[in-house]
Amino acid sequence: MSSLYPWRLPSPFCSTLDVLEKTHPLMVMNSLTRKKVRFIPSNSERVVWYQCGPTVYAESHLGHARTYVSLDSLRRIMKDYLGYNVILCQNITDIDDKIIIRSSERNIPFRDLAAMYEKEFLEDMATLGVQLPDIMTRVSEYVPEIIAYVQKLIDRGIAYESNGSVYFNTDAYSKCGHTYGKLMPEQIGNSALLAEGEGSLTVNDDKKNAGDFVLWKKTKVHTDGVVEPHWESPWGNGRPGWHIECSAMSGSALRKFGDGLLDIHAGGVDLKFPHHENEIAQSEGHENCNQWTNYWLHTGHLNIQGSKMSKSLKNFKTIRAALEVYTARQIRFLCLLHKYNDPMDYDDDTMTQACNIEKIFIEYFHNIKAYIRRSEGVSGNQHVGSGEETLLLALERVKKAVHEAILDDFDTPKAIGYLSELVRECNRSIESNNNFSSVVLLSVAKYVTYMFRMFGIITSNTDSIGFTNDSGGADKEQLLTPVLNVITKFRELVRIAAINGDCKQVLQCADDFRDLVLPELGIRMEDKGSGVDVVTVWKMEDPEVLRKERALKEEAKQAKERQREEALKKQKEREEKAKIAPEDMFKGMTDLYSQFDPVTGIPTHDKATGEPVSKSVSKKLQKEWEKQKEIYTKYQEKSL
Amino acid sequence: MSSLYPWRLPSPFCSTLDVLEKTHPLMVMNSLTRKKVRFIPSNSERVVWYQCGPTVYAESHLGHARTYVSLDSLRRIMKDYLGYNVILCQNITDIDDKIIIRSSERNIPFRDLAAMYEKEFLEDMATLGVQLPDIMTRVSEYVPEIIAYVQKLIDRGIAYESNGSVYFNTDAYSKCGHTYGKLMPEQIGNSALLAEGEGSLTVNDDKKNAGDFVLWKKTKVHTDGVVEPHWESPWGNGRPGWHIECSAMSGSALRKFGDGLLDIHAGGVDLKFPHHENEIAQSEGHENCNQWTNYWLHTGHLNIQGSKMSKSLKNFKTIRAALEVYTARQIRFLCLLHKYNDPMDYDDDTMTQACNIEKIFIEYFHNIKAYIRRSEGVSGNQHVGSGEETLLLALERVKKAVHEAILDDFDTPKAIGYLSELVRECNRSIESNNNFSSVVLLSVAKYVTYMFRMFGIITSNTDSIGFTNDSGGADKEQLLTPVLNVITKFRELVRIAAINGDCKQVLQCADDFRDLVLPELGIRMEDKGSGVDVVTVWKMEDPEVLRKERALKEEAKQAKERQREEALKKQKEREEKAKIAPEDMFKGMTDLYSQFDPVTGIPTHDKATGEPVSKSVSKKLQKEWEKQKEIYTKYQEKSL
Repeated sequence: MSSLYPWRLPSPFCSTLDVLEKTHPLMVMNSLTRKKVRFIPSNSERVVWYQCGPTVYAESHLGHARTYVSLDSLRRIMKDYLGYNVILCQNITDIDDKIIIRSSERNIPFRDLAAMYEKEFLEDMATLGVQLPDIMTRVSEYVPEIIAYVQKLIDRGIAYESNGSVYFNTDAYSKCGHTYGKLMPEQIGNSALLAEGEGSLTVNDDKKNAGDFVLWKKTKVHTDGVVEPHWESPWGNGRPGWHIECSAMSGSALRKFGDGLLDIHAGGVDLKFPHHENEIAQSEGHENCNQWTNYWLHTGHLNIQGSKMSKSLKNFKTIRAALEVYTARQIRFLCLLHKYNDPMDYDDDTMTQACNIEKIFIEYFHNIKAYIRRSEGVSGNQHVGSGEETLLLALERVKKAVHEAILDDFDTPKAIGYLSELVRECNRSIESNNNFSSVVLLSVAKYVTYMFRMFGIITSNTDSIGFTNDSGGADKEQLLTPVLNVITKFRELVRIAAINGDCKQVLQCADDFRDLVLPELGIRMEDKGSGVDVVTVWKMEDPEVLRKERALKEEAKQAKERQREEALKKQKEREEKAKIAPEDMFKGMTDLYSQFDPVTGIPTHDKATGEPVSKSVSKKLQKEWEKQKEIYTKYQEKSL
Repeated sequence: MSSLYPWRLPSPFCSTLDVLEKTHPLMVMNSLTRKKVRFIPSNSERVVWYQCGPTVYAESHLGHARTYVSLDSLRRIMKDYLGYNVILCQNITDIDDKIIIRSSERNIPFRDLAAMYEKEFLEDMATLGVQLPDIMTRVSEYVPEIIAYVQKLIDRGIAYESNGSVYFNTDAYSKCGHTYGKLMPEQIGNSALLAEGEGSLTVNDDKKNAGDFVLWKKTKVHTDGVVEPHWESPWGNGRPGWHIECSAMSGSALRKFGDGLLDIHAGGVDLKFPHHENEIAQSEGHENCNQWTNYWLHTGHLNIQGSKMSKSLKNFKTIRAALEVYTARQIRFLCLLHKYNDPMDYDDDTMTQACNIEKIFIEYFHNIKAYIRRSEGVSGNQHVGSGEETLLLALERVKKAVHEAILDDFDTPKAIGYLSELVRECNRSIESNNNFSSVVLLSVAKYVTYMFRMFGIITSNTDSIGFTNDSGGADKEQLLTPVLNVITKFRELVRIAAINGDCKQVLQCADDFRDLVLPELGIRMEDKGSGVDVVTVWKMEDPEVLRKERALKEEAKQAKERQREEALKKQKEREEKAKIAPEDMFKGMTDLYSQFDPVTGIPTHDKATGEPVSKSVSKKLQKEWEKQKEIYTKYQEKSL
């Protein structure tokens, strides 16, 4: 590894380390240092944060999900759990070579294609519970700011115009005392990555140095029908390069907050080189500083079934395709079960693991709710005995452990692990004591709920604002309608059965209501005990799960029915056979035998040959005859 | 003011004041110091908190609302906003003289009365969005702990048994080096308050000093029918005194957390003397310490229309009565618009003010939602111009100001004021620019929503736990719960009736479900048609309307019943009368008449005068006789 540029801790109010440990306990993995460092915002509690948004040229895929769900968790933690005053700006790259190419291919106007995929991206993010940023910068809305930014770089002598395009001058930049390659010095000169960063419509021979990169791209005329959108500039018609967009937009939209500097810059690890490296060069050149961003946070790679996701490997997976198989919550669990900066694999194993963890919590909430209903809310015993004390101490231990995990570079997998330990402790508490304090159980459940809401696992109110209706109103009626419809019908059927004096039918209605009707509404009803001592509980459940359960039960029932039928059939066959007198048993076999013993009816001559049957055959027939005689005699006796 | 006992700052990790300002910025008004002091929990982030709950002998009133809503706001702030690890214990005083007296008056078992009002209190709290405590201690569940606590005070020589009761010895306590009267030294010796604290069933002449107070009350026999519930103890049958309950229960339930000490003790200002003063004496005596509770927080007085609420002034107001006029949210706004420790007036003016503030925010959320709908979500312009910059800077300013207000002894009125300024700024932004960034507007609205949820102003999810379903969630479950509970019960009852072969009972269940159960949930079920051809429909309706309807129906039914009974009675009287032969009808009237006709039995002479009856009287009697003869003859004919 090449040596890294020395990073300096942002100056805190007080520099003694033991004090810093108390006032700024959060440690983050900074890509600039490649080790965990103390997080200190430049201006008290304010966190000025920029992160790279998507280029909207296609459906958003699991790589986006991984990046934005993870970063959303980090932001929720900083904002809602650690209490920082976060201001997050995220861009939408809606001017880009890939968009130009695809809109030409599809013959859709450039702006329309970008708008369509932007809308899809935002919808997918909302589905995944990713909160909107505080500021959303579309490149198309910042072209004047970008042009001014480029001009300032030219004015500073670290960019040059060449043939209608403008390039960043890495040589001149270094000569001004700046350092190029702070994030990934080992990648400097990686021409393949550099070229990818320049965009496929950019084949430039106008650069002074191979390491230079484009800031402004002159509009070209293509013979294959590709039409490049363009904006006027001091250098002629053209459009912004990719890297300059983020520098100029964050510099513009966040200037009033960070004075041109950032506390956090985040993005996928793929963007480190050249995109983020070049952003640093542009911004430090523009601001004339040497620590534009104090903390660079990078999310880890996403693999699909063990390989990097790519269209050529046919393992490209859109968010919508994944959402057909798994729920948003399950995908969020997958992300939380990986550290944001670890590689993450989306495959059957990891998803099964995520679903299993989810199931632990689902079961837990069901258990608690059922327990509380059974014990009539909080009217039962609330005395804090040793069981309650143990659970409350476990709660405190877990709160502390979760807190420490979060402070250790947002270690969400550890935090989820601690929460599931707590949940197991709760389950044990109820199992061993059916007189356990429900207030204490609720205290624990509310903490778990609170953390899950904070983590975005409980997403009901993502981006929802304002009051909820007090009376419930139309929503209430809407929600109650299916349930009230089925009760009404159930009551009708029960009454008819009772009017007809058919108590058996009343019970059948009650069974059908439980087995067929309620599951369709996502309600599992369970009768515990038997006869008149049955106690019934209900739980909310995904109708799909209930349907599957019923299908399995139905299948098992049918299999049993089939077995029973087969057994019955065999029994009947045996009975029919027993009715045949041994003398008659071979009567119909004239196709095999030509002569039969006049008394016993046993075949004596083979039909095909006309000869007497062989000794062994004769013996076999004799044996069968004896057996039939025995069966027949028994049947005769039974019939008397 | 008498001089206060010197209070000592809990020892922090580091004692330099400028560091403390950063690590422990929260200042609270401590009743022990009567000035704002820095809040420092004894054990890092853990806050061990006890607060006095209600005595459940009557409906909870606005004084309870004021205390518990305000303390709920403080707890939410400490837990959800400042990130403290709060463990809150609140008691239910279900053994008390007032409960004993009222249950005797009403002839309801003591436990039932307490359980009923406990349930009502908890329901009222839930309606007001007050979260349940982490631990709820009912006195009736802690009698053994209380006895052990009293015994330890006796063992320490600061309590004595006298005539089957036990008293706290204030003299001996002082001689041990303790100080009695840390909260309100000026009230020491206030015999009226002291007596009130002892309870109206306690007339004790067994105390050594007038300032002593009762820890254990011997059971007395009352001649007026009042029955005192009792528990066995080393001093004979008796029950706990009021003050000892809180010391013993907090000491027991929270011991594993605070090691017998508390960070916060809260309660209404009325409880300062003698209740809290005596708690301090008991607990510091028991723990042998001199700062049992580091921070005493007291909520301010509640006045109704300018006067202290009292039954004699006829301005006593239950929470339910207030909720008939105002919503829970409006009452919470009223509380937030007063500092928790300021006096609060509930009158037309203050409620109008609360409603007006609420209206500002309601209008604001409507405006924002309408604007966002109009501009098609976030698809419109998102460029951060000077308007957006101004609003984002206002947001940051308000965040900071709200934060500082909260740190200044939970100054919620100031915080609400800043939030309404922010909202006005938003309204101005939209009015002046119909191309304003909706992402920026949402960022502001989400902060307001977040703070309102934290303050308990948006209460949809108060005490709700667990996952929300994709389709609508915890709210859905919450809404469905009452309906599903009654269906479950209905189905249980119907099944039991059917198992018993009692079809008539099945029909009765169906009727009760329609007439008694569903109306309470605001559901009107109507059976149209008759017999097996009944078609049933349901409608949502205000439960109050349904209750009134049922009351009217019930009344009509009863009136009809009364008429029928009266008619029956008259019929019977007539029948009885018809059985009397006309010759016998005047027989019993010897107090009026002295002589009767020997054949007809009609009176001939007046008793008082001894003279023959007047002609007119004779005529009248003759007429009655004829009429009776007719009736009697008819009866005779019918009887044949």
